[in-house]
Amino acid sequence: MPKKFKTPMIIVNFKTYSEATGRNAVELAKKAERVNDETSVYVGVAPQFADIAAVAKAVKIPVFAQHIDPIKPGSFTGHVLAESVKEAGAVGTLINHSERQLKLSDINETIAITREQELLSIVCANDPNVSAAVATLKPDIIAVEPPELIGTGIPVSKAKPEVVTGTVRLVREVNSEVTILCGAGITRGEDVKAALKLGTQGVLVASGIVKAKDPYTVLREFAEAAKK
Amino acid sequence: MPKKFKTPMIIVNFKTYSEATGRNAVELAKKAERVNDETSVYVGVAPQFADIAAVAKAVKIPVFAQHIDPIKPGSFTGHVLAESVKEAGAVGTLINHSERQLKLSDINETIAITREQELLSIVCANDPNVSAAVATLKPDIIAVEPPELIGTGIPVSKAKPEVVTGTVRLVREVNSEVTILCGAGITRGEDVKAALKLGTQGVLVASGIVKAKDPYTVLREFAEAAKK
Amino acid sequence: MPKKFKTPMIIVNFKTYSEATGRNAVELAKKAERVNDETSVYVGVAPQFADIAAVAKAVKIPVFAQHIDPIKPGSFTGHVLAESVKEAGAVGTLINHSERQLKLSDINETIAITREQELLSIVCANDPNVSAAVATLKPDIIAVEPPELIGTGIPVSKAKPEVVTGTVRLVREVNSEVTILCGAGITRGEDVKAALKLGTQGVLVASGIVKAKDPYTVLREFAEAAKK
Amino acid sequence: MPKKFKTPMIIVNFKTYSEATGRNAVELAKKAERVNDETSVYVGVAPQFADIAAVAKAVKIPVFAQHIDPIKPGSFTGHVLAESVKEAGAVGTLINHSERQLKLSDINETIAITREQELLSIVCANDPNVSAAVATLKPDIIAVEPPELIGTGIPVSKAKPEVVTGTVRLVREVNSEVTILCGAGITRGEDVKAALKLGTQGVLVASGIVKAKDPYTVLREFAEAAKK
Repeated sequence: MPKKFKTPMIIVNFKTYSEATGRNAVELAKKAERVNDETSVYVGVAPQFADIAAVAKAVKIPVFAQHIDPIKPGSFTGHVLAESVKEAGAVGTLINHSERQLKLSDINETIAITREQELLSIVCANDPNVSAAVATLKPDIIAVEPPELIGTGIPVSKAKPEVVTGTVRLVREVNSEVTILCGAGITRGEDVKAALKLGTQGVLVASGIVKAKDPYTVLREFAEAAKK
Repeated sequence: MPKKFKTPMIIVNFKTYSEATGRNAVELAKKAERVNDETSVYVGVAPQFADIAAVAKAVKIPVFAQHIDPIKPGSFTGHVLAESVKEAGAVGTLINHSERQLKLSDINETIAITREQELLSIVCANDPNVSAAVATLKPDIIAVEPPELIGTGIPVSKAKPEVVTGTVRLVREVNSEVTILCGAGITRGEDVKAALKLGTQGVLVASGIVKAKDPYTVLREFAEAAKK
Repeated sequence: MPKKFKTPMIIVNFKTYSEATGRNAVELAKKAERVNDETSVYVGVAPQFADIAAVAKAVKIPVFAQHIDPIKPGSFTGHVLAESVKEAGAVGTLINHSERQLKLSDINETIAITREQELLSIVCANDPNVSAAVATLKPDIIAVEPPELIGTGIPVSKAKPEVVTGTVRLVREVNSEVTILCGAGITRGEDVKAALKLGTQGVLVASGIVKAKDPYTVLREFAEAAKK
Repeated sequence: MPKKFKTPMIIVNFKTYSEATGRNAVELAKKAERVNDETSVYVGVAPQFADIAAVAKAVKIPVFAQHIDPIKPGSFTGHVLAESVKEAGAVGTLINHSERQLKLSDINETIAITREQELLSIVCANDPNVSAAVATLKPDIIAVEPPELIGTGIPVSKAKPEVVTGTVRLVREVNSEVTILCGAGITRGEDVKAALKLGTQGVLVASGIVKAKDPYTVLREFAEAAKK
C-alpha cells in the first residue's frame, strides 16, 4: 500500500484491550474492513505489535502500529523497529499517544524514520499548544486528545470544543497541509459529526468501538456520520 | 507448550538486528531449530514482537518475547501485553534486559504476570548483586550480562569470570532453584563451555549468532560445547 | 555527622508540599528538632533539594535528600549528585520512593554511591517481595510503603499489617542487619505503635505530619508512641 | 529580580561537575559576576539544585535551576518544584537539556509553570526542527545544542553552522520574539563571536568555562567577544 490516505478518516486504536487482542483483533479488524468497504470512509486499525501480522493478512484496510521507537536496526532489545512493523504489514504508526509519550527529540526522530520507511505518521497531542509544536515537525496526521476525557464517553467535541477549534487554529498557523483528527470520549455518530464540523478531518477512537456491544454497528454509525 | 524447559540452554536474542527481522527472523529461527533438533540442547529464540507470530508458526522450538509490560488488559496504547505475545506463540519472555531496563517494582509485577500466564521468565541482571536481588523474586531463569561487554566479542566467561561466579554464589544464597545463564561477548564454543564450567546452565547470546557469517555453524558449535 | 543512627526512628518526608517548602521547610524542621531533643527518638527530615542547605543550617537533626542520581561528578545537567547534597548538609537520602522509582541496577549503583560518600541509605519498597530484593543490596534502612495507602490516612499498620509482617519476615531471611521502617497512612501515635509491634524499627511519614494542623503535637505523639 | 533580561547573554551551566559543586559553585559564580559587572554582558549561572541558595546569596547575577518538574505543590517526592528553586533564589530555569529531556507535553506544562511563577524559561533543543517546535510554545529563550558536540571543544558555530542558522530561520518563521542561544563545544571568544554572527543572541556554555584552567579569563574573553 502506497503512502496515501483520504479523508474523512476513522482510526480505531485497539490498545491492549482483551476484546482486541489476538483472534479478537482479527475479528474486529474484519468488522472495520466491512465498514470501510460499505461506506468508502477511510477506516484504519491499530492493533498490538504481536497482532499486526495476523490482522494485516486478514484485511485490506490500513493497519497501524501503536508506537515505534526512534531507532535504526541494531542492539535495541525490547524496542519496536519501524522495519519490523512494516514487514509485518503496517502502513503507518501512532506516535506519542498520551499512554506512550515520547521526548520531543524522539518525536522528531520517529517522524523522520516514518518518512524514510514510507510509513504514515499519526502524532498524538494533548492540547492545542502541543498540537502546534507537533505540526512544525510535519507529520502526516495529528490527533488531539485531551487525556482526561479518554475512555470516559464524554466526547471532546462536546465537552471541550475549544480544544478542537484551538488545535485547528494553531496548527493551521504553522502547517496548512497536515490532516487533523480529534479523539477522546467519542461513542456516537453525532460526536463524529461534531468533530468534523469543528474543523477536523476525522477521529481517533478506542473504547467507543472496541468496548461497544456491537462494534460493527457503532463504527458504521460513525462512518455514516463522517460521510455527510 | 507447557511451562517446562531443560538445560543446558542457549537463548538467541534477535534484538532489532536487520539480520533477524521479518523473513530473516524466520530463517534464523529455522537454523536454531535445526541445532535444537540435532543436539538436543534447549535452543530458544527471542524475536521482535511483530515477528513472534511468524516465527512461532515456522518452528517448534521455544519462542520468547524480548520484553512485556507489567500490565493487565486495558488502556495501554503502545505497550506489550503478556496475553498478546502468548497468543502469538511465545512461551516466555526476557525481562529487564540491559537495553530495556525496568523499575524494581515493575520487574516484580512482570514476573507475577508471567506466572499467571504460565510464561517462562528470563530476567536479566548486570552484576552479581542485581542478580541476587532478582533471585529473591523467584523468576524461572536469571541471565547475568555485564553491559560493557555486550556486542564486543570479549566473552564474559573469560574477561570477567568473577561476575559469573559471583552471580552463581550470591544467587544460590537466596535461591537454590533458579536457572542461571550468562551472556555478553560470547562468539565461540569455548566461551560457552567456560560459562558452564563457571556454574551456569547456559548462555544468552545475540550478535555472536545473529551477526555471524554462518549462524547455523556457530550455533551448532555452541550447542556441542554446551553438551559436553 | 558520622554515618550512625539509632532506633526507633521517625523520618518526615517533606515531598513538594507548600507547607514544607522554603521558609516553611525550615520551620517544620525546627519542630522536628524539638521533638527529637525532647524525646530522644531519632527524628530525621527529608526536604527538597533546594531547601537542604537552609534546613541543615537551621537544625542539628539528620537531614536527608529525597533522591540522588546514580552518577559521579560530570555532565549530568539537572541531576542530583551525592556530593552536592552532602556538602549542602544531608547525611543520607531516600532512594526509590514510590513517587521517584528507579531501575533495579540504578538502585544498586545508588546504594554503592551512598557507601562511598558515607551517606545513610533509606531505600523504599512497595511490598514484601520488593523489600526482600532490596535487602540483598544491603542498604542501611528499608522503608516499605504500599503506594495505594500513601496520603490516605488509612494506616498500613492497620489496613495491611500483612505487608509489614511479610516484609519483616522476607527481609530477615536474607538480611539480619538492615533497619526496617514502614509508612503510608500514618496519622496517629497508635499507628506508630502498631508499626513497631509488627516488627519495624520506625516509620516514614509525610502528609500525616506535614499537613497536620499542629505538626509539632502530632510528631510528639508519634515519638512518645515510638518510645514505649 | 523581575522577569527581565538583556542580550547578548552568556549562561554557564554548572552541570554536576566537581569544579562547580558546593563551595566551588559559589566561587565560580563570583567569577561570573565579576565578568558580568566588568563587561555589562548578561552572564547567568545554572548551579545544581542544592547549591542554588548559597550561590544566589553570594552573587547578584541571575541564577538558574538546571531543571524543574511540571508539577504543582503536592506528593512528588524527589521532584523539583518551581516554587522551591524560586524561593532559594533562582530567577529562571533550563528546561529539556539534552541530558535531562522531557516529554513534549511536559515541556509545554513546564513553560506554563515558569510563566505563573515569573521565572525565565531557557528551553534546550537538539536541532532546528526541535527548536521550531519549542518556539511555538513561546518560552523566553531557546538554546540549540547538537548533543554530539557537547563537551568536545569542537564549536557548533564552526562545525555545524547550519544547525545554528537553520534554527534561527525555522524559529523565526513561527516566533519573532524568542531569544536564541546556541551551545556545544564553545571554548574561545571567537566561537562566541561566530555564534552571534550566525544570528543568535548569546551562548549556553558548560565545560568550556567550568573545566577551564582559568574560568574568569575565558569567560571574560567570551564576554568581550559577545560585546563587539
